[in-house]
Amino acid sequence: VAAAPLPDEFSLIARYFAPLAEGRAGAEGLTDDAAFLTLDPAQELVVTADALVAGVHFLSQDPPALVARKALRVNLSDLAAKGARPLAYFMTAAFPPGVDEAWLAAFCSGLAADQAEYGVALMGGDTTSTPGPLTLSITALGQVPRGRALKRRAAKAGDAVVVSGTLGDAALGLLALRGGLAGLTAAAQEHLIDRYHLPRPRTELGPMLAEAGIAHAAIDVSDGLVADLGHICETSGLGAEVETGRLPLSTAAAAAVDGRPDLMTKVLTGGDDYEILFTVPPAGLDAVADLSRRLDLPLTVIGRMTAGGGVRVVGADGSEIALDSAGYRHF
Amino acid sequence: VAAAPLPDEFSLIARYFAPLAEGRAGAEGLTDDAAFLTLDPAQELVVTADALVAGVHFLSQDPPALVARKALRVNLSDLAAKGARPLAYFMTAAFPPGVDEAWLAAFCSGLAADQAEYGVALMGGDTTSTPGPLTLSITALGQVPRGRALKRRAAKAGDAVVVSGTLGDAALGLLALRGGLAGLTAAAQEHLIDRYHLPRPRTELGPMLAEAGIAHAAIDVSDGLVADLGHICETSGLGAEVETGRLPLSTAAAAAVDGRPDLMTKVLTGGDDYEILFTVPPAGLDAVADLSRRLDLPLTVIGRMTAGGGVRVVGADGSEIALDSAGYRHF
Repeated sequence: VAAAPLPDEFSLIARYFAPLAEGRAGAEGLTDDAAFLTLDPAQELVVTADALVAGVHFLSQDPPALVARKALRVNLSDLAAKGARPLAYFMTAAFPPGVDEAWLAAFCSGLAADQAEYGVALMGGDTTSTPGPLTLSITALGQVPRGRALKRRAAKAGDAVVVSGTLGDAALGLLALRGGLAGLTAAAQEHLIDRYHLPRPRTELGPMLAEAGIAHAAIDVSDGLVADLGHICETSGLGAEVETGRLPLSTAAAAAVDGRPDLMTKVLTGGDDYEILFTVPPAGLDAVADLSRRLDLPLTVIGRMTAGGGVRVVGADGSEIALDSAGYRHF
Repeated sequence: VAAAPLPDEFSLIARYFAPLAEGRAGAEGLTDDAAFLTLDPAQELVVTADALVAGVHFLSQDPPALVARKALRVNLSDLAAKGARPLAYFMTAAFPPGVDEAWLAAFCSGLAADQAEYGVALMGGDTTSTPGPLTLSITALGQVPRGRALKRRAAKAGDAVVVSGTLGDAALGLLALRGGLAGLTAAAQEHLIDRYHLPRPRTELGPMLAEAGIAHAAIDVSDGLVADLGHICETSGLGAEVETGRLPLSTAAAAAVDGRPDLMTKVLTGGDDYEILFTVPPAGLDAVADLSRRLDLPLTVIGRMTAGGGVRVVGADGSEIALDSAGYRHF
C-alpha cells in the first residue's frame, strides 16, 4: 500500500514541528530562518551533533516514537557526558516516500514526550524529501559552568574508571530482536530490547559530576566500552585496564552471558549503552558512592587508568582477553 | 568502476575533518563528543540548520568542492539574513558506497576554501554510512548584538522592499545546465551556472544592516522571491507589492528573459538566489544607498509593504501577474 504523500514543507512544519517549539522564546514558532538564544555568561555552550540513518542506526520498522526518542536521547547523552544540561535541539530530517502523516504524528509524539522528560525544546531545523532511507540529524545545545566541562583528554594515571548503570543490554537487545537469544525468558528479552530501543541518557549524573568537580575525564558509551575507553586513553595519552568480573550487568544480561560466555564480547564492544564512563581520582570515590545513592543509579568501578597505552581487558581468572574488534565502525 | 571503500570513521575524521577544526579552541581537534564555546555576553547566539540531499539539492555529478561550498554557504546566508556574523558550524554527513577518498579530499578542500573566505571553522559533527543518496546536514552558529537580530516578523506597512545583488541567476543556471538556454552565449550560460553552483552569501551586508539598525525585517531568498517575501508578509501580518520592472537582473539573466519573457517566472519563483530581501522604512533609504556604495553591491528597491495580505506582483505594464507556484516546495 503506497503511503499518502506528505503535505508541503510549510504545512508540515506548522502542523507537526511548530508545536514542539511552542512557548520557547527565540524559536520564533519555527517561522524564521534561524533561532535566537541569549546565554548565561557564567556558562559555556556545549554543542554536539549526530546523524541516524534507517537501516544503519535503527530498523525502518521500528516504532516511529522510539526512533524519535532514540535520536534525541543519543544527543542528550553526549551533552550529559560533557557535564552539560540540555538547552535546545535542531533537527534536519530527510523523509522518503514511505513516510506518511501517521508516521510523522507518532514520531513527533515521541519527541514531545522526551522534551517534557528532559526539559528541552526543538528550536529549528529543516525538512526535505529523499529517495533514500530516512535520515535524521540532530544538533543539541547545552551549557556547563565555565571551566567545568568533562573532556575525554583529562584522565590522569591512577584514576579509577567508573561506569554508570549496566553494560551490554542494548547490544544483547539487538541480538534478541534478531532471534539470537531464544533461550532467555520473554521478560529478559523484553528488558534488553527496550534498552536497545530507548537509551537512558544520564542527564542528571553528568552535570552533577561536572558541577561538583568529581570526575576528570568522561565519555558516553556509544561505540562500545573498549572503544570508548580507548578514546579516553588516546586523548589523555594513557592506558587503561578493566576487569570483566567487575562489569555491571543487568539480571537479563547476566542470564544471557551465563548461558553463553562468548556474549561477554557484546558487553565489551557492543555499544549503544549510553551510560557515562568517567575517571575519578581515588580520593573522589566517596563522592561517587554518595552520588550513586542520591541518584539511585549504580556507579561501578570497573578498572583504572595506567601510564601505558591502549585498553587491557582482564578476565575473571586474571588472564588478558584479546578482542578482534574494539567496537562498531562505519565503512 | 567501484570506488575503493572509505577508511573507518575515526581515520576519516582524523585525516579529512580534523584539519578543518585546527587551531580552534573548544573544537578539541574533533576528538571529543562535543565542542565548547564561550560567547560574548553582549551578543545573542543565532542558530540555523539545513539539509542537502544528492539528487534533490544538488546533482550527484556536481564537483565535490562546489557541493561542500554550497552546503556551507546556504547556512551562512541564513545567518547573514538575520544580521549574524558566523562563528562555527557542525556537519553530519551520510556517505553512500560511491564516495571515495578522492571525492572526500575535494569536498574538504571546498570547505577549507570557504572557511578561509568567511572566517568560520568546523567544530564538530558525525559521519556515517548510508545505502541512499549522499546527505549532508549543517548547523551554523553566529552572533548578533543583543536585540539587533533581523526577524521575518518585523516588517512595517509602508516599508520599502529591498533586495541585494541580482535575482534569477541560479534558477536560470539550473535551466542552462539542463540545456534549456541554448540560445544564450556560452559566457552568459557560464555566469548563470556558476551562480547556481556557488551562492554568494551576503555575510557583510546582513550584519551591517543589523548593527546600524537600518532594516526592519529580513530573509534570504532561497525558496524564491515571491515565496520568501510571502514569509515576511505572513509573519508580519502584512502584504507586499513588487514590480517586475524593478527586479535587478544580471546581464545574462536579462538576455535570457528578453528572449523568452516567460522566464520572468524563474526570476520571481525560482529560488536559490541567496540574496538578502529586507524591508526598510522610507527614512532609511539614504543609508541603504550609502551601504550599497560602501559594499559595491546593488541594493534595489523592488516594492513596498502594504496593509493587505499576500504578495502582489505587478508587470511592467502595471497589470497584476498571476503565478501558479510561489516557489519550490518539497513533497
